[in-house]
Amino acid sequence: MIYVTRRAAFSASHRLYNPQLSSEENIALFDKCANEMGHGHNYVLEVTVAGEPDEKSGYVIDLKKLKEILKREILDKVDHKHLNHDVEFLRGVIPTAENVAKAFWRVLQPHITDGKLYSIRLHETENNAVEYRG
Amino acid sequence: MIYVTRRAAFSASHRLYNPQLSSEENIALFDKCANEMGHGHNYVLEVTVAGEPDEKSGYVIDLKKLKEILKREILDKVDHKHLNHDVEFLRGVIPTAENVAKAFWRVLQPHITDGKLYSIRLHETENNAVEYRG
Amino acid sequence: MIYVTRRAAFSASHRLYNPQLSSEENIALFDKCANEMGHGHNYVLEVTVAGEPDEKSGYVIDLKKLKEILKREILDKVDHKHLNHDVEFLRGVIPTAENVAKAFWRVLQPHITDGKLYSIRLHETENNAVEYRG
Amino acid sequence: MIYVTRRAAFSASHRLYNPQLSSEENIALFDKCANEMGHGHNYVLEVTVAGEPDEKSGYVIDLKKLKEILKREILDKVDHKHLNHDVEFLRGVIPTAENVAKAFWRVLQPHITDGKLYSIRLHETENNAVEYRG
Amino acid sequence: MIYVTRRAAFSASHRLYNPQLSSEENIALFDKCANEMGHGHNYVLEVTVAGEPDEKSGYVIDLKKLKEILKREILDKVDHKHLNHDVEFLRGVIPTAENVAKAFWRVLQPHITDGKLYSIRLHETENNAVEYRG
Amino acid sequence: MIYVTRRAAFSASHRLYNPQLSSEENIALFDKCANEMGHGHNYVLEVTVAGEPDEKSGYVIDLKKLKEILKREILDKVDHKHLNHDVEFLRGVIPTAENVAKAFWRVLQPHITDGKLYSIRLHETENNAVEYRG
Repeated sequence: MIYVTRRAAFSASHRLYNPQLSSEENIALFDKCANEMGHGHNYVLEVTVAGEPDEKSGYVIDLKKLKEILKREILDKVDHKHLNHDVEFLRGVIPTAENVAKAFWRVLQPHITDGKLYSIRLHETENNAVEYRG
Repeated sequence: MIYVTRRAAFSASHRLYNPQLSSEENIALFDKCANEMGHGHNYVLEVTVAGEPDEKSGYVIDLKKLKEILKREILDKVDHKHLNHDVEFLRGVIPTAENVAKAFWRVLQPHITDGKLYSIRLHETENNAVEYRG
Repeated sequence: MIYVTRRAAFSASHRLYNPQLSSEENIALFDKCANEMGHGHNYVLEVTVAGEPDEKSGYVIDLKKLKEILKREILDKVDHKHLNHDVEFLRGVIPTAENVAKAFWRVLQPHITDGKLYSIRLHETENNAVEYRG
Repeated sequence: MIYVTRRAAFSASHRLYNPQLSSEENIALFDKCANEMGHGHNYVLEVTVAGEPDEKSGYVIDLKKLKEILKREILDKVDHKHLNHDVEFLRGVIPTAENVAKAFWRVLQPHITDGKLYSIRLHETENNAVEYRG
Repeated sequence: MIYVTRRAAFSASHRLYNPQLSSEENIALFDKCANEMGHGHNYVLEVTVAGEPDEKSGYVIDLKKLKEILKREILDKVDHKHLNHDVEFLRGVIPTAENVAKAFWRVLQPHITDGKLYSIRLHETENNAVEYRG
Repeated sequence: MIYVTRRAAFSASHRLYNPQLSSEENIALFDKCANEMGHGHNYVLEVTVAGEPDEKSGYVIDLKKLKEILKREILDKVDHKHLNHDVEFLRGVIPTAENVAKAFWRVLQPHITDGKLYSIRLHETENNAVEYRG
């Protein structure tokens, strides 16, 4: 079994806010992350696919293909966007790193047919990261 | 002469938009950076102060003091904020990295009294950075 | 299951020396790490907590809380210290990265009540790191 | 159980080319990686050994020893070389990162006698990496 | 004056070899860099342009334009290539980092018309870099 | 003119303490950096040499030679040492980054005979750095 990882970066805004709570409860829960006008990050995404290398190519998955899948399914939809407002597949989701990683998994998994999706790792800052393995 | 640099990071949203231009002109000029809901970055700021080390301390400037100045004058005002809406000293400024670096210089310079402010370097992404030397 | 990681850095001295061995045996075993006056590192600590995101917040653990726990229980006690002399919870321990990571686990685990402590990763230099998973 | 990781870098050329396929098939499969004169990378290798720390030393494995093993068995043979032409243990292998990581495992495993070899991680670029765990 | 920097990476092979010297002299001069089959690097290029921000855009130079110039004039010609064999503008040049940086300057300068080209910085490895300022 | 930079890392302890001041004054001046048992860092040193590339080699300075000079004159004397106690050329110096950089300049300059020493840059942590240009 080989684990192949592709890294990509994107820049987006978000706001942590639960509409079922009051303004005060949101600030108590999310502090400065609840700032009304939002804030943003250079997110770093690492997608790992697990499988056996193909005999003919020596690849688990052609990383050029994985790069294209990431671009088409994820980056084109979230880069230079506001995660609360602009992204169809995040509608109704509080965009914490945890929830965004799970949403990315749901979007990507059907497209990974060489090997199997193993992990989505999402860095929000240089000090904070989450990982989801399905 | 010694050049002393302190690095700090902050997360903010911005939108590149010139209100004197039409929507179409803004999109032609700023492309996806003009996205209505904005987008964001983990900005990395490097502030350099130049001077001679003090004989008693061996310091050009005490980096704990510089850290406090950066926190009080810059980071507390821009971290987890929207640069177009939430920051007094950026009112009326198109928040390109160039303009933000110049604004940071204006804010910081009066507070640097040990040594002289030499450079403001601002990284918007891992691939894009600007530097202003006054 | 989501794995949430918080990264933090601290600067400390240490010396690798087993008091039950002779000076010569210590030098044979630890080489330049046994230098009598010690040496030091910018350690990088990565603490990973595993759990399910809370429905109300979308968080496995509020990273602001984890940051405070790390500061209070670990960083305030080891940053700008000598690990052999200044740290209560390392008394009698040879401060190899392996042993320090295990000690950090013992100190942190009772304080992680949202999710479960999953891993302590400690980088001693840019080329050397250890990980402990309990 | 503690996982100890040593990181090392080397600079090498390679070409992705399957001699059982035609030139056209190779270009279809490997695209610019099939360039006749080859291309190159600063590979970053991370070798992880798992075990219990020794009581006398506090080490799972002495990282100085692991460093020497990596130098003698791997780096001296691949650094500043062409992986398709200059490396005995890669003869007949299409040098994808997947295949190179597996070859490194075969070469290193017999030499790791303190603890057990747990993982070989090989970064080809800052965006592409593979991991093999035997 | 503002200094704007765009960073880009490419992977290439090279061999340091002076055809006017004997094999022995080349090995004495270039050591393992003279390896007949070549070796390679993930080069990191940083291009800095100096100028005043435009009033309408707040840009010294639109970094999207600079990115396109770098892609068209440099990256498409050197990425996944052998610098000694595949690159028209390096014909007859010993491809040391110094000489490559100077060649990049000659190629890029005529295309930088917003602001002026100020510096070409080229990292060959994480420990070695050169800078040319014309 | 080309500027060639070699990067190297070392791990050392230091304590900031001026023997001409009282204990209280030292703590007021240096805070936790005055901790009696010292603390430590993974210092990162960047040495830049300026000159014209040699016609025969294409080098300003052979980086293998610069690497050896750095090892012999600096790294072998400071790596895994206590800067206040173990280093001849730092006797009587308060080892702030500023003072250490200046001492490194004095030690290195006579040995740089291909090109001229242009800059010593010393990173004490990932957030603090100094540069000295003679």
